[in-house]
Amino acid sequence: MSWRDQIKAAAARIEGHVVRTPVMRCGGFGLPYEIEFKLEQLQHTGTFKARGAFNTLLSGPVPQAGIVAASGGNHGAAVAYAAHQLGHAAHIFVPEIAGPAKIALIKRTGAQLTVVQGEYANAAEAAAEYEDASGAMQIHAYDAPGTVAGQGTCMAEWEAQGLEADTVLIAVGGGGLIAGALGWLEGARKVVAVEPETSCALNAALAAGAPCDVSVSGVAANALGARKIGQICYDLAVEHKAESVLVRDEAILAAQKALWQERRLLVEPAGATALAALMSGAYKPAKGERVAVLLCGANVAPDPLG
Amino acid sequence: MSWRDQIKAAAARIEGHVVRTPVMRCGGFGLPYEIEFKLEQLQHTGTFKARGAFNTLLSGPVPQAGIVAASGGNHGAAVAYAAHQLGHAAHIFVPEIAGPAKIALIKRTGAQLTVVQGEYANAAEAAAEYEDASGAMQIHAYDAPGTVAGQGTCMAEWEAQGLEADTVLIAVGGGGLIAGALGWLEGARKVVAVEPETSCALNAALAAGAPCDVSVSGVAANALGARKIGQICYDLAVEHKAESVLVRDEAILAAQKALWQERRLLVEPAGATALAALMSGAYKPAKGERVAVLLCGANVAPDPLG
Repeated sequence: MSWRDQIKAAAARIEGHVVRTPVMRCGGFGLPYEIEFKLEQLQHTGTFKARGAFNTLLSGPVPQAGIVAASGGNHGAAVAYAAHQLGHAAHIFVPEIAGPAKIALIKRTGAQLTVVQGEYANAAEAAAEYEDASGAMQIHAYDAPGTVAGQGTCMAEWEAQGLEADTVLIAVGGGGLIAGALGWLEGARKVVAVEPETSCALNAALAAGAPCDVSVSGVAANALGARKIGQICYDLAVEHKAESVLVRDEAILAAQKALWQERRLLVEPAGATALAALMSGAYKPAKGERVAVLLCGANVAPDPLG
Repeated sequence: MSWRDQIKAAAARIEGHVVRTPVMRCGGFGLPYEIEFKLEQLQHTGTFKARGAFNTLLSGPVPQAGIVAASGGNHGAAVAYAAHQLGHAAHIFVPEIAGPAKIALIKRTGAQLTVVQGEYANAAEAAAEYEDASGAMQIHAYDAPGTVAGQGTCMAEWEAQGLEADTVLIAVGGGGLIAGALGWLEGARKVVAVEPETSCALNAALAAGAPCDVSVSGVAANALGARKIGQICYDLAVEHKAESVLVRDEAILAAQKALWQERRLLVEPAGATALAALMSGAYKPAKGERVAVLLCGANVAPDPLG
């Protein structure tokens, strides 16, 4: 089944379980052109990841032992939320760098939570052990077809809302969101993959000719800090010639601040990373090129009302 | 000219100067029904007030001495922003209770700013003195036809975006926003005016049979704390039978927290006041009644990225 068909099936499956997030067009940000934004940070649990979680849980039987996920925080919160909504038990493993705001978010869903020393890869190891021991079903954060198809519904929805852009900029961690977008678009629009210089698994993979390990750090690491890009994402990025650009942490923080100060959109650093590519000039649209930016996460720390 | 015609003219005048703010529909908030939201807190300077400011400035000649406004903070920021965009000087008078976040917002526009001891009425007095001495043009925060017509474009825009509600809940301070909505709707939908118990100029006026002075305090006072409801608002509220309900500060803060925790919409207390009426039961929709909530302000203190 083509990605488009998988994404259409996912959209039908998750309808009513996820929010149809709004879009808006505006100027500002020191740029001489308008940008079309999709406010996917307003999705359940503050990121697009609820889409992939619901799609996976609704795609087949779920074992009595429930669900397990490893996560920098956002995927875990989405899985915990979706599991709770659908009446399944969930056990989420997060690395310490998830931080207190994301940990509190997961706790509010009622899921069991284990905080693991180290980074995302360590949490993934612990989750795999739990999966083997318990018989729980694991939902991969980005490199599984059900996850990618679910995330792809975001771009499908955006097009149904009248997206007019030539080019869409999307932040990349493990690559689930951009893989879904690439699978949906099939080259119909240019896709720019934006990564922090300090967490650039896709950029490194494209340079190396295959997914490879990278070290991860920086302000967006708890959301974009995948040690290795997903194979699904890598293959789709090569097939559809995604353009890869990198941004510095300072550019990410400047974009985050501008989104709040100019537009009252509060996002986490990962959520501002795609806009940072425009504001910093890491991606320079041609004259007349219409650009769109996907805002993907709002789980900021510290919690502004915490 | 009817209010609808004035609002249509205002919409044509301010097009391109204001943001077409997005709408979204979602459940949650402990309520058994969905709500349609308009995210007007994403407007320039974080509130609907840019609409009235642009409409007034674009309606006729502006004196060389520029613009003066008195404001709890939000109107001043909007006037300062609009004046700057259109190349006019602006002098804004705010009471101390505006608070550092709103004061910083006004300063960023480049306007002259005077912080006045006391409350909104004291700032209004100082602004009137400055107006007389300088020849600057004053833009009233809520009780002027140009302001009301500008704010009315928000409801006109919402209807053009496909609003399907039977009932719209709107927070009320001096009444500019709800007056515009009432003038546009002409009774076609039910309008519920939501005020804090501690700042309820419209509620008191409806009880007294005319605008009257009230004392103002509470968590939303720097946005909703008008000492007397505008006459324009009062007359429209009576004519179109707006329903007036009151909410406690705790209900406002609970709604503010829920908007952030459940939906990643960060608003100031005034921006959460209309939703508070639903969450607290101050307004109980009938079975099947479709409700909509206008989110009107996001200038929270402290600034989450300040």
